[in-house]
Amino acid sequence: MGAALVESIAHLRQHLTEARRSNATIGLVPTMGALHAGHVRLIEEARHECQAVAVSIFVNPLQFDREEDLRRYPRRLDEDRQLCDRFGVDLVFAPSVEEMYPVPPECTIDVGRLADHLCGKYRPGHFRSVATVVMKLFGIVRPDRAYFGEKDAQQLAIIRRLVADLNVPVQIVGVPTVREPDGLALSSRNTQLGPAERQSAIALFRALQAADRQIAGGDTDPAHVKRLAVAEIPPDNPSLRLEYLEIVDPGNMQPVPVITGPVRVAGALWVGSTRLIDNVLSAPGKRSA
Amino acid sequence: MGAALVESIAHLRQHLTEARRSNATIGLVPTMGALHAGHVRLIEEARHECQAVAVSIFVNPLQFDREEDLRRYPRRLDEDRQLCDRFGVDLVFAPSVEEMYPVPPECTIDVGRLADHLCGKYRPGHFRSVATVVMKLFGIVRPDRAYFGEKDAQQLAIIRRLVADLNVPVQIVGVPTVREPDGLALSSRNTQLGPAERQSAIALFRALQAADRQIAGGDTDPAHVKRLAVAEIPPDNPSLRLEYLEIVDPGNMQPVPVITGPVRVAGALWVGSTRLIDNVLSAPGKRSA
Repeated sequence: MGAALVESIAHLRQHLTEARRSNATIGLVPTMGALHAGHVRLIEEARHECQAVAVSIFVNPLQFDREEDLRRYPRRLDEDRQLCDRFGVDLVFAPSVEEMYPVPPECTIDVGRLADHLCGKYRPGHFRSVATVVMKLFGIVRPDRAYFGEKDAQQLAIIRRLVADLNVPVQIVGVPTVREPDGLALSSRNTQLGPAERQSAIALFRALQAADRQIAGGDTDPAHVKRLAVAEIPPDNPSLRLEYLEIVDPGNMQPVPVITGPVRVAGALWVGSTRLIDNVLSAPGKRSA
Repeated sequence: MGAALVESIAHLRQHLTEARRSNATIGLVPTMGALHAGHVRLIEEARHECQAVAVSIFVNPLQFDREEDLRRYPRRLDEDRQLCDRFGVDLVFAPSVEEMYPVPPECTIDVGRLADHLCGKYRPGHFRSVATVVMKLFGIVRPDRAYFGEKDAQQLAIIRRLVADLNVPVQIVGVPTVREPDGLALSSRNTQLGPAERQSAIALFRALQAADRQIAGGDTDPAHVKRLAVAEIPPDNPSLRLEYLEIVDPGNMQPVPVITGPVRVAGALWVGSTRLIDNVLSAPGKRSA
């Protein structure tokens, strides 16, 4: 028993034939592996809502803008598979790069201005490649529902828009970020942090919390909120470098000139040679995160 | 009885629920209406291979690079529907522009270098919009097979590549061009030609035939073949203007430096204010078209 490991597209489709014939609801959790409790939350949600659950594990080389990041990205298929077993996943789809890209794709998903800010600004081509591989996974698995973490807020917004714009028959489910007791958002990249870096890494969430409190308290000026938030990043810590902290519309990911409703406050912080991202959804008058 | 006319996406999906539940093969014939015998060939092919046949009729404004062309494009839904009835179509999907584009799309299909030549060179953004609307129709209808005419060779090559690159679970069927007795390829735009223009329009096919004969006879030099082909367009006819005539690889739509295998010879000819396209598949040693 347990989760079947499938490496080819043809086998995956074969495995799902029976589920599809019996009109079972199919849930997909797309991942890059190195699964943690945040992924478990996605799997649990899928398990709860769907009759068949597939987890894809694919470190998509096209979405890495830095060779170094691709090389360092953690890979541990055996542990991932055991975790999938434990949480009742039916199918683990772990294709090779050659299986996913027998030739370099000519047709890709252009995500328009949704990639103009936040991570998109600093990682050229990243979201084009994310949207393209997600579209491929949707075509391969044909899920009824797909589960994405809110930690990757820009990715989630892009996938939601992709599905709406192209009438993709998949329901997108966003799942709240899972955090360590001190608030650090879970991420496969956290394993790359040394002990001192791990301590320092919390600064990003602290900055987001500061912004959230300020917005909840009625501050409508994004520049002012940002100034206060950035002050939470210790300036004397040489291993920390803030890449961005922006306050954007939660739908179209564009910076807002004035905060009058819900906004996404998102940031990217370099901790040594590891890049971490996080975000919170804030609104005037809302109880703080 | 007859073909049901459906204008909303929700109704279309509802209509197809039963077919899908019973695992019927669903065929889609995407069109812009003004149906002619070329479309009938597509419908017949779909009728022959599928249990349920849907014809979409949507004049996609985004793929028109000239306002004038969009305005003049023939529209005759009543006749189209009767024709669909006559040829056993189950569903005619004729959505409004608002139904297809409630907001301008942010996510679109970038078709890469497949649009660098032929029509793509002269109609900026055209194939991006074609690929995007076809992807939308695939998401809406979820067909098992979709039928496209070979007359639009670049479009067909792009759709084939799109489906391969994004693992779209739709089988693409290319259907040979239907021609008038004198060889003119059927096109909805032919109705825009005056009697004298209709006579002159055959020059495009004559040019393609000349190229085809030359290639079949062993000429491997695209420039030379092109020179001979272009000579078939009467230079003294002021209503004719050749936009392009190119010899390309049938898969990636790139010009070939030497003709060593099958090639697509494609051209666009302006006849008065109407733009016509046509193409033939040629190969060294192949019997002429």
